[in-house]
Amino acid sequence: VERFASYDDLHLLVQKYIVRGEEPRTIELHTGIDGRVWSLNGEHFRACKPVGSEEYLGMECRTGEFDISIDVMGSYVIEGGTIEDHRLRCEDREMIHEYSIRISPEKPVTLIQYVSVFTSNDTEDPKKSARETVRRAQRLGYQVLKDEHKKRWDTVWDVSDVRIDGDIFSQAALRFNLYQNIIATPAHTDTLPIGARGLSCQAYQGAAFWDQEMFNMPMFLFTQPEVARNILTYRYKTLSGAREKARNLGYTGAFYAWISGKTGEELCPSFFFKDVFTGRPIHNHFNDWQIHVSPDIVYAIKLYYEATGDWEFIVRYGAEIIFEVARFLWSRAHFKKDKNRYEIIRVLGPDEYHENVDNNGFTNYQCRFALSFAESVYQRLKKENPSEYYLVAEKIGLEGTEVDDWCDMQRKLYLPEPDPHNRIIEQFDGFFDLEDTTPEQLERRILDNHEYWGWPNGIAVETQVSKQADVIQLMNLHPLFEKKVVRANFDYYEPRTQHGSSLSPSAYAIAAARIGYIEKAYTYFKEGTTIDLWSTAKAESGGTFIGGIHTAACGAAWQMIVFGFAGMRLAEDELIFEPVLPELWEKVSFTLFYRGNRLTVSFTKESMYVTAYEENPDSVDVRIGCNIVKIGPGSHEIVQYGDLRL
Amino acid sequence: VERFASYDDLHLLVQKYIVRGEEPRTIELHTGIDGRVWSLNGEHFRACKPVGSEEYLGMECRTGEFDISIDVMGSYVIEGGTIEDHRLRCEDREMIHEYSIRISPEKPVTLIQYVSVFTSNDTEDPKKSARETVRRAQRLGYQVLKDEHKKRWDTVWDVSDVRIDGDIFSQAALRFNLYQNIIATPAHTDTLPIGARGLSCQAYQGAAFWDQEMFNMPMFLFTQPEVARNILTYRYKTLSGAREKARNLGYTGAFYAWISGKTGEELCPSFFFKDVFTGRPIHNHFNDWQIHVSPDIVYAIKLYYEATGDWEFIVRYGAEIIFEVARFLWSRAHFKKDKNRYEIIRVLGPDEYHENVDNNGFTNYQCRFALSFAESVYQRLKKENPSEYYLVAEKIGLEGTEVDDWCDMQRKLYLPEPDPHNRIIEQFDGFFDLEDTTPEQLERRILDNHEYWGWPNGIAVETQVSKQADVIQLMNLHPLFEKKVVRANFDYYEPRTQHGSSLSPSAYAIAAARIGYIEKAYTYFKEGTTIDLWSTAKAESGGTFIGGIHTAACGAAWQMIVFGFAGMRLAEDELIFEPVLPELWEKVSFTLFYRGNRLTVSFTKESMYVTAYEENPDSVDVRIGCNIVKIGPGSHEIVQYGDLRL
Repeated sequence: VERFASYDDLHLLVQKYIVRGEEPRTIELHTGIDGRVWSLNGEHFRACKPVGSEEYLGMECRTGEFDISIDVMGSYVIEGGTIEDHRLRCEDREMIHEYSIRISPEKPVTLIQYVSVFTSNDTEDPKKSARETVRRAQRLGYQVLKDEHKKRWDTVWDVSDVRIDGDIFSQAALRFNLYQNIIATPAHTDTLPIGARGLSCQAYQGAAFWDQEMFNMPMFLFTQPEVARNILTYRYKTLSGAREKARNLGYTGAFYAWISGKTGEELCPSFFFKDVFTGRPIHNHFNDWQIHVSPDIVYAIKLYYEATGDWEFIVRYGAEIIFEVARFLWSRAHFKKDKNRYEIIRVLGPDEYHENVDNNGFTNYQCRFALSFAESVYQRLKKENPSEYYLVAEKIGLEGTEVDDWCDMQRKLYLPEPDPHNRIIEQFDGFFDLEDTTPEQLERRILDNHEYWGWPNGIAVETQVSKQADVIQLMNLHPLFEKKVVRANFDYYEPRTQHGSSLSPSAYAIAAARIGYIEKAYTYFKEGTTIDLWSTAKAESGGTFIGGIHTAACGAAWQMIVFGFAGMRLAEDELIFEPVLPELWEKVSFTLFYRGNRLTVSFTKESMYVTAYEENPDSVDVRIGCNIVKIGPGSHEIVQYGDLRL
Repeated sequence: VERFASYDDLHLLVQKYIVRGEEPRTIELHTGIDGRVWSLNGEHFRACKPVGSEEYLGMECRTGEFDISIDVMGSYVIEGGTIEDHRLRCEDREMIHEYSIRISPEKPVTLIQYVSVFTSNDTEDPKKSARETVRRAQRLGYQVLKDEHKKRWDTVWDVSDVRIDGDIFSQAALRFNLYQNIIATPAHTDTLPIGARGLSCQAYQGAAFWDQEMFNMPMFLFTQPEVARNILTYRYKTLSGAREKARNLGYTGAFYAWISGKTGEELCPSFFFKDVFTGRPIHNHFNDWQIHVSPDIVYAIKLYYEATGDWEFIVRYGAEIIFEVARFLWSRAHFKKDKNRYEIIRVLGPDEYHENVDNNGFTNYQCRFALSFAESVYQRLKKENPSEYYLVAEKIGLEGTEVDDWCDMQRKLYLPEPDPHNRIIEQFDGFFDLEDTTPEQLERRILDNHEYWGWPNGIAVETQVSKQADVIQLMNLHPLFEKKVVRANFDYYEPRTQHGSSLSPSAYAIAAARIGYIEKAYTYFKEGTTIDLWSTAKAESGGTFIGGIHTAACGAAWQMIVFGFAGMRLAEDELIFEPVLPELWEKVSFTLFYRGNRLTVSFTKESMYVTAYEENPDSVDVRIGCNIVKIGPGSHEIVQYGDLRL
């Protein structure tokens, strides 16, 4: 059997079956379309009509939820064997051709099937498009389609692959993750999100989380920047949903959905888990209190801008998002007059076990970052693109006093600082007053393996056990903190972190690599890249199915290499590397796009080697250790660490 | 058997047993002291030593918690009968005289026992005091002690009694409650609180709640104003505990304890109930989020001042409390710059099923009231009592800018207003978005009769079912709202209120009487006055014993008569009545003290009759309906409603 969903023509599915007999016999071969599709919420199609002919198999369906037309068209070729009988079974929601075929060792039978799927989201006449796709496929034939598919994949792998020499296990696990991140991402369009489980299953409804910008996007940003632009443009195109969400909750601006549907509408239910002891639904506040997704998107836009220099994107899309997010944050904040500071209260940070917390470090730093960027974009846009500025200002009714407010909030927003004695940042107000225990100790209190650990009364709530990286995530995003501060926080939070989220091991891997905990980084790398390889233990939580491919962790695999082991980060106008390698690895190599320039980076335990493509428009400043090298088009640099490290 | 705890000498207990035999026989008579006392937290005494003699029985004890000495001394007299044998059994923590006594029909035996209890809180040498008390009692003898006791009670009943003619049931139930309110109240001292369960049991540790000011105090304010003063002075003497609580939680000023111990320290545990399904403790926030107790105390002080005119109390005690509470409220509030208003967020209102709510109407109105009173006390004190003002200002470091802040907060504090369409005040932000159901419907969802209905995941949390009067309580306290507004809110909230708190029926009775729902008021009156008469069904909640006498409800019984049926409230310089009577009642009469004047008020369905005592210093302005009468010392007025009602 050979089959592929064509990466060259996304609407095309192709499969080939060859059946050989060890002795002559008659086999039954059934081929067709089964329209009985169930979603997590029930029957997926409200109508489903088989439309068959001798030439085509077809199914015209309409979804129950949004009344979307889905047309599936197929045709097939049977070669070899002797057809003894053929029946067309056409039932409700099912259309099957049934063949009795005589085969012998010398006369195998081959079934090639071409199937195309179009929906009314793709085109006005999905049926016609599907039929044309099938017709073209039939005309070109199996091998040509396969070659086209392969060629397209080669192009993608050419920029996406990361090579690890010396550890075939890590290499394979890493590629599995890169592959999953690629196929989960609707690279071809700016109107679809990256599903938190990709297309692997229906959990999380194919919708976007903060995962999209913080975990999936960076790999594309540095390998296929146009895909990163699409991902961010999706957020522009879903601004209306974010605005509506803000309005519904009494805020202004744009409050992005925790689980963002097609138009940005909030898909996250208020009751997500079940209390296993009573069977009653649990009211979590992922949707209304987990506000960091909005500044996270602004963070991603700034990262995109820094990596690409694409100011036009900011002008066209980014500015409006950024202003609306700043507005939202302003309306969300509380000012404590007695302390002369803004606070951000009643939130969930990345650690989802602790809801209803105040001044979560991650959230507050992200908010200040977003406000600061909003201010600078406002200043530059007004100066450099006055007409575009006025358009957006008029569109959203922006007033100058609002920008003053953002500046005020930015200056007076409370940020929990590292404690002067032990250098630890408190995850949120009062965190250190919670019971100090570990995930292992907590586990002994479990009464039911399916019980939910978090809000409002799970076993972690009154303790310092975090579901996932929180303060450490903050430190990965903001290089404000000295290494000794990161180390102190790593040492404190690591034993208290459950890694109950697939987003957590990668964050710890990146931080560990940066502070010189290299073998620890390697351990977390292995953990982070095998989440979907070893088991499906975490397919269910609090009675809710949350299995499938963890696409964010897949995207984070790339980050562990580039942000973690290669130690890459962006400074004003340069790329900074601080490479480290675990014992087992000999060399790591990857491709990087930076402001229109393509580089190849590879590094060993002794040296780093950076090559610039001939076609690059500019030279690129690269800092390795404390040495800065300028790499012009077509040139390369090799830097021996021995010469550099202080 | 006859026994009494002397109301004339609070340290004295007296009992008399008479045993008559139908035929001659020898009986065993044991009398003594049992020191094996257990509290809810274990053995109450860490040491307990019997100290006996022929003359006295004694027990010297020390409590485990605060190392308080408690001395119990007793003596007894046996008259009649023939003592055949006498043994003194003195064991660990127990001292018993055992008698074998021969009695006959003609020769009954009488045992009279005098016992005195003193603690090191009362006197330096409790043992000596107890012994002296017993000695005096022995000297005076049973009948004299009983007469003194009775005389003292007569004095109290003379001012406290409320007569209901026409309904012996209501009369009896009411008197039961008045009696309980009186005996629960340490009228003789200003250093002890009124326990939420009086001395009836150990639940709530004998400590004060908001109940003290809002439910117990008003009866004393209008019958024994000096007792009301003691009650409020207790709050002055516990300011240090309230200050410490505020400081511990990051606030300034005085945040009064939800369950206030001897020095005002917070006794309310964070984990009060148990989750019956898992056996795990439930984290409630009565102690840190239920902030209204502080402004409630200020409210009570203002009521005290209005009823007594006792400015000296304000100067000496009240001002400091009021200023510290205003300070606390200021530091507790959040300012929403986008809305240019202060909000009070994350609180519990009176309805304890809903924690973590914002802008609870009751709380916000009480806070504004407290701030407003703080401002006016500040102005008057500064002007009329400058030296006392400077003393208190210096003592607490008060600055004029703080008072500006209070004024600002008072002006800009968000108060949920009655909806212009349906006149309903939302209990807190988002209340109307909760599931709209009734206590009866909710009850069907119960899985375990002992399960707790409230935070964080009880069955009422996500619904509009309130544990108790909340908006209605607000309306009872503040005569800001027109009757049609109160009626609309009554109609809305009543079917959604469970009356799961003993504080609730009285609030509904008072509101009902005021808006003309007279028979409904009567029903709630009966409910409110029989809480401790019919059953002990509510003795336990979420695994915690909360039984005993509900002293707040007992105090509220008086309020139902005076604030409810008599419709009394205070205006600037007058007493206002709007009397109504339920069908069954013919007449209601009670005594009232108002600014040093004693009045007797009685009313029927036709008229109200007010008599002023000869000794009154002033005349009193009384408004009945729309008629104002001035009642001079020794005079009386009868007002026929027929002439008055519009």
